[in-house]
Amino acid sequence: MELTRRDALACAAALSVVPLLPSVPVKAAAPLAGKQNASFYRYKVGDAEVTVISDGANTFPLNDGFVLNAKKDEVGNALERAFRPRDKMTIYFGPLVINTGGKLVVIDTGNGPGAFAASKGAVGQFAANLAAAGIDPKAVDTVVISHFHGDHVNGLLTADNKLAFPNAEVLVPEVEWKFWMDDGEMSRASGERMAGLFKNNRRVFDAGLNRKVTPYAWGKDVAPGLLAVESIGHTPGHTSYVLSSGSDRVFIQSDVTNDPDLFALNPGWHLMYDQDPVQAEATRRRIYDMIAAEKMRVQGFHYPFPGLANLVKEGAGYRWIPAPWNPVI
Amino acid sequence: MELTRRDALACAAALSVVPLLPSVPVKAAAPLAGKQNASFYRYKVGDAEVTVISDGANTFPLNDGFVLNAKKDEVGNALERAFRPRDKMTIYFGPLVINTGGKLVVIDTGNGPGAFAASKGAVGQFAANLAAAGIDPKAVDTVVISHFHGDHVNGLLTADNKLAFPNAEVLVPEVEWKFWMDDGEMSRASGERMAGLFKNNRRVFDAGLNRKVTPYAWGKDVAPGLLAVESIGHTPGHTSYVLSSGSDRVFIQSDVTNDPDLFALNPGWHLMYDQDPVQAEATRRRIYDMIAAEKMRVQGFHYPFPGLANLVKEGAGYRWIPAPWNPVI
Repeated sequence: MELTRRDALACAAALSVVPLLPSVPVKAAAPLAGKQNASFYRYKVGDAEVTVISDGANTFPLNDGFVLNAKKDEVGNALERAFRPRDKMTIYFGPLVINTGGKLVVIDTGNGPGAFAASKGAVGQFAANLAAAGIDPKAVDTVVISHFHGDHVNGLLTADNKLAFPNAEVLVPEVEWKFWMDDGEMSRASGERMAGLFKNNRRVFDAGLNRKVTPYAWGKDVAPGLLAVESIGHTPGHTSYVLSSGSDRVFIQSDVTNDPDLFALNPGWHLMYDQDPVQAEATRRRIYDMIAAEKMRVQGFHYPFPGLANLVKEGAGYRWIPAPWNPVI
Repeated sequence: MELTRRDALACAAALSVVPLLPSVPVKAAAPLAGKQNASFYRYKVGDAEVTVISDGANTFPLNDGFVLNAKKDEVGNALERAFRPRDKMTIYFGPLVINTGGKLVVIDTGNGPGAFAASKGAVGQFAANLAAAGIDPKAVDTVVISHFHGDHVNGLLTADNKLAFPNAEVLVPEVEWKFWMDDGEMSRASGERMAGLFKNNRRVFDAGLNRKVTPYAWGKDVAPGLLAVESIGHTPGHTSYVLSSGSDRVFIQSDVTNDPDLFALNPGWHLMYDQDPVQAEATRRRIYDMIAAEKMRVQGFHYPFPGLANLVKEGAGYRWIPAPWNPVI
């Protein structure tokens, strides 16, 4: 039966005399909150205070190319063993803020405001979670960049291409800086992805920062107690860090592995984003051997939030054991 | 060299003419935040929305009696394998709020305001984290109690002994209710701890709630989609729940195990708080077999926050695998 406009109006008139609510008062049901907690988490390393600030997570269908040397099915099996969906991949992003007591230091900046808009808020949450954590970007003294992929550098700029951390010195690995700013390297970039990365880095560091960066060397502190450590392979200048205070320390791995359920358990797997996968694997094995042997805590940029964990040997790789959440600091 | 008081005064006078600060302006270092994020976490079970609300955590020296049938050293080894301190125990507390779409339901209420004061804020955080999660206690329709230990019932009352959830019906397991309200059982209570529990339950349910509770039976829904399941041993009426919505579900275990690093991995270990340890172990084995076989998610009251996990068989027990934190809901 189709209602004409006249029928509809007649119905509306008839219904208007019928009470739609029962005569006994009914308490309205509480609406769903529909909103997650702000994703930041604090812990101490000696006297230093670390705040993990989630930039969100990106979910996409799992394809055969995601791991270069393992079939989609094998990768799916690993995801399933971790009780995650076998046919899609979720990548997490976790920039850090470290208060050394004297300096407020950001390590990596997330996917940035462009990605926030494009992903409808799934990623690019760094700025909002930073605000939720009560941290003023203007108070940041130093921004340390681990490597020049978009999910680490794009948050250096605001939506209107201003400096996101206007009072901070921006420290970049000198090897990374040379590679991405070299016109010869750019002209030899193979494939669309690499060309896009060069273009993005010129956008951020030329147009955005006007090349106002300070290159840093490995083996030296980039901030009090924060030692820069070579961990190349993922990119030519990829850098990790050891944060030390007193006898306490944590290994801030950056992208030595991507997701630990895949690449810690299978250090021989080659991620599509590793620029030199063979070197990346060698670095991964060397560093994970060291972390496990020394029973250091590890903080992983792509570990599920908050990304603080320990590693134990399991089979041919390592299992990550998330640190228990501390409801106080 | 020892300074006399006169020397010290002379030094102080001399120093007072030396400028103590450099003449160039120095940016003040950002203060440490010193404060953890609010510990609440949301996830969906079908159309229902679950909010885990941490009540905090309690840390104490590990003693030989904590696990009745394992030495302190064995328990310490298990803690150390989980990268936790071997000589002290931390117990976490995680009440829940479930919005079924029609009803706002609280499951268990934490250690309460008295414990908050006594522990200097380490536990009894439920009310504050509930507020941080934007949940009004007056909007709660139903409070479901799993069993009558203080860390589950004490949050029913405010600091001035008013109802913490003034508009809610309070549902209690009928077997539990009969046991703790029975004067004969109370008179036969063996030991200080049991006597204290009886006394506390009379305080909460007699003086506080004036016995205004609704006993519920196992095998029936206590709220839409929330099935009460017998899981006795920890207490005579100890209850777990299955929350279902559509094809999705989670097993809300309450205290079938205490900390999973100890009692999921070692289901034969007897916790000092299990009133019938042999029955508690049988229940634990039966339920953990079921959860693992059905690959259900499990929500544990004493699991580290947020306490949502899966279980896999490992050795003679089960390893818990925390669900990855979802930065959106």
